Amino acid sequence: MKWDDQQFMAAALGLAARGRGAVEPNPMVGAVIVRDGQVIGEGWHARFGGAHAEVEAITNARGRGQDVAGATMYVTLEPCSHTGKTPPCAEAVIEAKLARVVIAMIDPFERVAGSGVRRLREAGVTVEVGLCEREAHELNAAFVKRVTMGLPWVVLKWAQTVDGRIATATGDSQWISCEASRRRVHEWRARVDAVMVGAGTAVADDPQLTARDVAVHRLARPVVVDPNLRTPTTGRLATASAKRLTLAVDEAVLAAGGEAVQQWQAKGTSLVGLPRLDGNEGMLDLRPLLRGLVEQHDATNVLVEGGAGLAGALLSQGLVDQVLAFVAPKVAGDASALGAVRGWTLGRMADALPLRLHDVERIEEDVLLDYRVGEARG
Amino acid sequence: MKWDDQQFMAAALGLAARGRGAVEPNPMVGAVIVRDGQVIGEGWHARFGGAHAEVEAITNARGRGQDVAGATMYVTLEPCSHTGKTPPCAEAVIEAKLARVVIAMIDPFERVAGSGVRRLREAGVTVEVGLCEREAHELNAAFVKRVTMGLPWVVLKWAQTVDGRIATATGDSQWISCEASRRRVHEWRARVDAVMVGAGTAVADDPQLTARDVAVHRLARPVVVDPNLRTPTTGRLATASAKRLTLAVDEAVLAAGGEAVQQWQAKGTSLVGLPRLDGNEGMLDLRPLLRGLVEQHDATNVLVEGGAGLAGALLSQGLVDQVLAFVAPKVAGDASALGAVRGWTLGRMADALPLRLHDVERIEEDVLLDYRVGEARG
Repeated sequence: MKWDDQQFMAAALGLAARGRGAVEPNPMVGAVIVRDGQVIGEGWHARFGGAHAEVEAITNARGRGQDVAGATMYVTLEPCSHTGKTPPCAEAVIEAKLARVVIAMIDPFERVAGSGVRRLREAGVTVEVGLCEREAHELNAAFVKRVTMGLPWVVLKWAQTVDGRIATATGDSQWISCEASRRRVHEWRARVDAVMVGAGTAVADDPQLTARDVAVHRLARPVVVDPNLRTPTTGRLATASAKRLTLAVDEAVLAAGGEAVQQWQAKGTSLVGLPRLDGNEGMLDLRPLLRGLVEQHDATNVLVEGGAGLAGALLSQGLVDQVLAFVAPKVAGDASALGAVRGWTLGRMADALPLRLHDVERIEEDVLLDYRVGEARG
Repeated sequence: MKWDDQQFMAAALGLAARGRGAVEPNPMVGAVIVRDGQVIGEGWHARFGGAHAEVEAITNARGRGQDVAGATMYVTLEPCSHTGKTPPCAEAVIEAKLARVVIAMIDPFERVAGSGVRRLREAGVTVEVGLCEREAHELNAAFVKRVTMGLPWVVLKWAQTVDGRIATATGDSQWISCEASRRRVHEWRARVDAVMVGAGTAVADDPQLTARDVAVHRLARPVVVDPNLRTPTTGRLATASAKRLTLAVDEAVLAAGGEAVQQWQAKGTSLVGLPRLDGNEGMLDLRPLLRGLVEQHDATNVLVEGGAGLAGALLSQGLVDQVLAFVAPKVAGDASALGAVRGWTLGRMADALPLRLHDVERIEEDVLLDYRVGEARG
């Protein structure tokens, strides 16, 4: 059975995904080179600063003793035409005399955005665009969001009993989900740019927010949304990560410059002042915090690990892209136990925030529900 | 490829399941007759009072012009040896001169319980027992529970937002789950012996508790657990189902014989008095209610549709066998919205009631989580 165009692009998408967590803030890209229905070269962008997928695929083919002249390349993203960390890929493709390039999606990054395709066509290469475009967009949804909106992809994660409780009334939550699920969370931490929690979680759990016992692709920046600067200056975050830590504080608290502000500043912690929405009593406006993570730290992916107040605030402000709910096989049965999201007043059930179910996965006896969030709650 | 023993028994189990909802209080039974590796006859118990699977399979084979003498029968439950609604199947098997009978499980019903196997062996038939025994037990778990414990199989069902809410603070719950999920509930109603709700649900929703727009296998008896007899005497249950309705009432309320008691008695409604557990303030002891449904109505399956108080009471008393949670793709985000189960005080998360995950099914954008409950909460 000979493969068709779609299968070659699916293979390129599979190669691209190998770069997840290691290439950001670059997009994940994969490429295969095909002649006479046979794959003669494979490449992917493996780490930030490393060679791009197109060049890797050409190098791979030549290493196999294959001549790429006249062959077809399937690549998941438009080849670049500008010199960034590496020379432009469009030139490499032209020099290698590839006859045809099939591209899943145009690069939304403004310095590429169609110019790669133009350059290839000018050089006489046949170019087709749009094969498996949906899958390619989904693969790089975080990259696309960042370059088009200046905001990171925000993943809101929690572990709950079937009846939706994330802790007892007194805050005990160890452990709701199984070891395999908790390991999955550490895998997420190991490939995002920031791990965010609310002040309640920082105070109650004294978390490290580090990825443990998994391969670490990048060292996530810890971020605590802490309006009144309650995070203990003697806790684990203060001890181990003060210089990498970001504390998001009510801008009035920051301006007042009290003792806690001075202590944190002395540790080299980054304090970000945020305005309140709807006056003094409202929640913090979290959009500037997320924008700042992009502008100052090139953050592409942010993992939010609760608690319920922060989850409610981010969802209310339309800042969440993905919800990961780990549902453990147990019943809390206690109306005073803590729920996964709070802060809203739900008048009618029809006013609940709609999600889109993306995937369901069984992890031993836990179930991981993976949702996308389409819009802000009105 | 020739089938092996296990595949023939799997086929018999598949045939047995066709009787679900129509054969109770009998067990579901399926049988296939095989000669030279070929299925020559198939049968299943299709409805209460109808022919048993073994006889159906012999009849089916003969109708196909096949001689069953010397053949093997695979049957999911031990053939009966007593005359009930139909003549004993063991005799039919012996008369048909089957050489070998492979049985998945012994019938736990005391009037059979091994005597069918003995009768077959006395007549010179080769008998093997235990092939696919686990699957056969699972198929007839409700039947096994009833005949061994005198209690029905209790399925606790609810529909929730991802964050575990079944209604707003004011009780609005229309609709959490999608139409396909709600249809699934009606399919359940159409094959159980009783549909049970708490008084709060009966008052707030004025439900009919009938199976609508689906094939009805049996007419479920509505049961309301209503300690203080608050179910409205002018509601849908009173109007449409008073004579079939069971109201479970605090025995002291029943003994007092007030106006509501007299009104319901005049309608022909069955009033069941139940003691309180742990004195006057405790929840009703629900075990006598379930035993009574078995003893008076041969109930094998009971579907409980909430609310949260009844769910908590049944789980606390160790009376639930299966939990069906329909998880809808939405977030309530309101800590005052109603949870699926209440009535407990959860000191530590480790004290939550453990369930066993049986199945996960995607129903459009809803996810149906199907759990088994192993034990009472300690």
